[in-house]
This record gives sequence, C-alpha cells and structure tokens, in this order.
Amino acid sequence: EFEGFTGYGEASLPPYLGESQDSVMGFLKKVKLEQFHDPFLLDDILEYVDSIDEGNRAAKACVDIALHDLIGKLVDQPLYRLWGLNPVHTPLTSFTIGIDNPEVVKMKTEEASRFRVLKVKLGGGNDREMINTVRSVTSVPIYVDVNQGWKDKQKALDMIHWLDEQGIEFVEQPLPKEQVDDMAWLTENSPLPIIADEAFQRISDVARFKDVYSGINIKLMKSTGLREAHKMITVARALDMKVMIGCMTETSCAVSAASQLSPLVDWADLDGNLLINNDLYEGVKVIDGKVTLNNLPGIGITKS
Amino acid sequence: EFEGFTGYGEASLPPYLGESQDSVMGFLKKVKLEQFHDPFLLDDILEYVDSIDEGNRAAKACVDIALHDLIGKLVDQPLYRLWGLNPVHTPLTSFTIGIDNPEVVKMKTEEASRFRVLKVKLGGGNDREMINTVRSVTSVPIYVDVNQGWKDKQKALDMIHWLDEQGIEFVEQPLPKEQVDDMAWLTENSPLPIIADEAFQRISDVARFKDVYSGINIKLMKSTGLREAHKMITVARALDMKVMIGCMTETSCAVSAASQLSPLVDWADLDGNLLINNDLYEGVKVIDGKVTLNNLPGIGITKS
Repeated sequence: EFEGFTGYGEASLPPYLGESQDSVMGFLKKVKLEQFHDPFLLDDILEYVDSIDEGNRAAKACVDIALHDLIGKLVDQPLYRLWGLNPVHTPLTSFTIGIDNPEVVKMKTEEASRFRVLKVKLGGGNDREMINTVRSVTSVPIYVDVNQGWKDKQKALDMIHWLDEQGIEFVEQPLPKEQVDDMAWLTENSPLPIIADEAFQRISDVARFKDVYSGINIKLMKSTGLREAHKMITVARALDMKVMIGCMTETSCAVSAASQLSPLVDWADLDGNLLINNDLYEGVKVIDGKVTLNNLPGIGITKS
Repeated sequence: EFEGFTGYGEASLPPYLGESQDSVMGFLKKVKLEQFHDPFLLDDILEYVDSIDEGNRAAKACVDIALHDLIGKLVDQPLYRLWGLNPVHTPLTSFTIGIDNPEVVKMKTEEASRFRVLKVKLGGGNDREMINTVRSVTSVPIYVDVNQGWKDKQKALDMIHWLDEQGIEFVEQPLPKEQVDDMAWLTENSPLPIIADEAFQRISDVARFKDVYSGINIKLMKSTGLREAHKMITVARALDMKVMIGCMTETSCAVSAASQLSPLVDWADLDGNLLINNDLYEGVKVIDGKVTLNNLPGIGITKS
C-alpha cells in the first residue's frame, strides 16, 4: 500500500521448485520495504530484495509484481503501455494437454477447442500415440514440451523430424538440462526450434544459452518477476533468440502480470489460471485463443 | 503535440556523421506520425520510423526524444522515474580537454576545476605532453579518448601501461575501428578497460563486441535515441560489459535526455551543452561534478 493504492502480487509454488508457503512467508518477513520512500525506485528495491537471500524466486516475484501493479496504478496506466507495447501484438496462448491414455487425451483436446494452439506434453513413452490422438481431433499448431523426458540425442532428433511432419512448432526441453553438449548438437541439427525451460532460470543464463538452445521459456516465478523478465527478453532479442512466456499453475494475478509482457514474445503458454477453480482475481482474458489485455492500470486485475 | 502537451527533441549533427540540417528536415518530412493514435505505442512508432530510411540516426533520435518527453509529460513523471531508476545514482560527468599546446591545455584544465573527472583527447602525437600538462594542474581521475589515433597495437599497449601509472580510468577507441583483431588483443592484454566509440553504433553491435572491447560508449545520436540506448545498456550488462554514456556538441535538450539513463552507467561524458553559447533549454545540471537530475516530467527541460 502506498498513498491509498494497493499493489497485488502472487507467488505460485510448484513443489519441485523448493518453495513452500512457509518459505515464502519467512522470506517476506525479512523484506523491509519501509526503508524506501518511493515505490518507483525499482532498481534499488529489487536489488535489495534479491540480496536478502538465495533462491526464493517466487517470493521475490510476488514483491516485484505487487510493486509493478502499484506503480501502474499510481500513474493510472497499464504496464504494457508504460513499456511502449501495443496490446494488439499479444500472441495466441496454448492450452496444455498432459500425458495420459488416448481416451483422456481425446476428451481433453475436444474440450480445448476454443484454443488455437495446443501444448502437448511428451516424454512419457507414448509420444507418437499422444500426437496421433491429438491430431485425430484437431489440426491446430502444436507446441511440444518434453520436460527433459528424452535421454538419447539421436533418438531425440529422429523424433523431432517426425514431429516436424506433424505440424509441430517447437520443442521445449527435450533432454535433461545437464546434457548441455547434447543439447547444443540437437539445436544445431534440429529442423524445429529448441526451447530451454528447466535449464533456464535467470538473466545470467540467457547469454550462456546462445549456442545451446534456439530460445528460452520465461516464467515470472523463475525470473524473480517482471523487471528481470523484461530484461531477459531484451537480451534474448539482441542475441537472436526466440522467446516464449509461460506460467505455473497460478491465479489471474501472476498470469495477468506475465501477459503485460506478451506483446514482446513469439509464443505464450499462459493458461495457468484456466486450470484452477479458486481464482481470486479477474484479469487478462483468452479471447478467440489470444491473450487479450484490458486497459486497467498496473497488471490489469480486479478482485473477483 | 498531443492533447495539449508538447514533447521536445533534438538532432545534433557532427559533420563526420553525414547528416545535415537538410537531410534531417528531409527525413522528418517523410515521418507520418498521424497514423498512430497513441504516443505510448513506442515499439510500433519507432520501428516504423527506423524503417523509413537507412541511417538518419540523429533525425531518428530527435523523434524518439520528443516522444519520450511527451510520454513523461502525459503521466507527469521524469523518465528516470518511469524506468525505476534512482537519481542519486547518477555518475560524475567528465569535461573534455582537446589536443593542443601545453599553454592552452593548462589553461583549459584550470578552467575545468569544477569537474571531478576530465576526459583528455590523445592521438595527436603529443600524448605524454598532454597528460603531463594536465597532471601538472590536477590529480582528478582522467578518461582518455584516442579517437582511433594509434595504429600499432604493441605501441598502444605500452602507452596504456604508462597511462595506467598516471591514474587514467579507461581508454576510448585507441585503434582504428577496422583493426578488430588488434583491438581484441589489446583489450585482452590491457590493464585498463578499452571502450568502443567510433566502432559502435547500434544494438546489434553490442553482442558482436563482447570479446573485442571491455565496454561501449552510447550516444543518442548514434543509437537512434533513448529506447534503443536503454536496451543497449541492458544487453551490455548481461554480457558483463562496461557502459559509458556520451553526447555530441548539443543543447541541454539531448544532454538532459541522455542524463535520464545515466543512473545505469559506469561513466558519463555529458558536457555537450557546456561547450556551446546558444543553449535553447535549461535542463539537467552539473553540480559538484555530478550529473544532477531534476524532477520535471519527461526529459526534464524548460525553454530558457
């Protein structure tokens, strides 16, 4: 809260990232924002927040999002507008189809008919069956996310060639993040872009991955929030890398925040708020498959 | 002009950059901003302006600066504040001492006593005399600008070792910009940072120069303005490069605009407005040698 305006933030906590409600509350207790007289001092404030402790990236994102929301409200502008972006340029968002048996996959794909792009998880041993099942229902473009599920680079390349024939747009994190040399070889030889997800966390990773991946999947809960995510996009563009923006399973708060940056990216997977029943906010909508920004100030949400 | 607010911009035109009053006016005549309904659409507008014609970087900077000034006024905030920067973190600015005989250099150095850093031009054949003369008057830190004046990399390195002993902070553009391999060798072996100036123009140069120079000298009249300059700083930082911000001989308009970014840089050489007698504006001041931002909206100027 500042001069009667309230900024909202969110930390979403997939168990595998090592943060919990307790760790976030513990971290936030250490954050002493009273020492800053002005919420506009983002560089100083967020550098301080980052320096309090290692990790805690979702907790840090929560502070970053709330500050951005507050600043947008103080100047009465949506963030995308303060950043000079055109809301017309938002991408489509994909809807994610998890690994399952053909009956379930078929049903989920049919339910997702309002989306114009799907993201299909592979790496569960039934890759061709998954794709064939989705393709039996729809011909929309597909993003593939392997979540480090393949181990052999040559087999991965063979599969990517087959995927290329099935109308796949790109492949996310095909090999384990530790197999850096294999990944560089795969990216060099692949007909499809290869995107880093699990391997990629913060801005220092971008330049490191220039010759290893074709692009990066940015998520606010990994990047510590909007400010670093925005910088990541600038750096990736300067290095001729593709950019995707994704999310965790989270409410319209964090999803709407990420959406403010989406006019800058190639691909979006911003469906986290559509996978939950307890969304506390109304914000950015998916209209005809496209991320659709409103003209509310800040991150663009209201309490629902 | 937009909704009663006016944004100011400036194109300054050193003869060696190939732009003239005629070329700027000719370029600006082609710029049809009426097609954009909203000055906040910086990404779209500046991409369009850049696409109108090759070169014309100062003319493009003039449009960019005016739009930024306008946006700052529309939301009633200085640009540094919209960018989340703390005005306390502005650097000192250097004052430039040109190549001349010892009497003149001594006089100019004495006149510059209110500056806490000097930039001394070398490469005129009297390098040691220049430095010795300045040092006979003052012990402040010195930046050295060779303007491509040395040709031999080994002699350059010997001179840099000597300069290091005289309290020099860095060396700008020691060799001709075409000698890329020599420059990379010099940077690797130099005890002082080597900064690109003539070699460096736009954002695509930053990544290219990662292993050739220690850092870059950004000038708005080369970068096409504030938006690309801001991105350049982000990219250079991600690549662990040093950043300097400089200017041409220009009024307080362009100098104040560049100063808005200065909390982000290592070094500033923002004395262009102090070298002229026909400054049309009042803006950012040098106080006790330091770039000092005011709290006026936009680029922070008023007509004088």
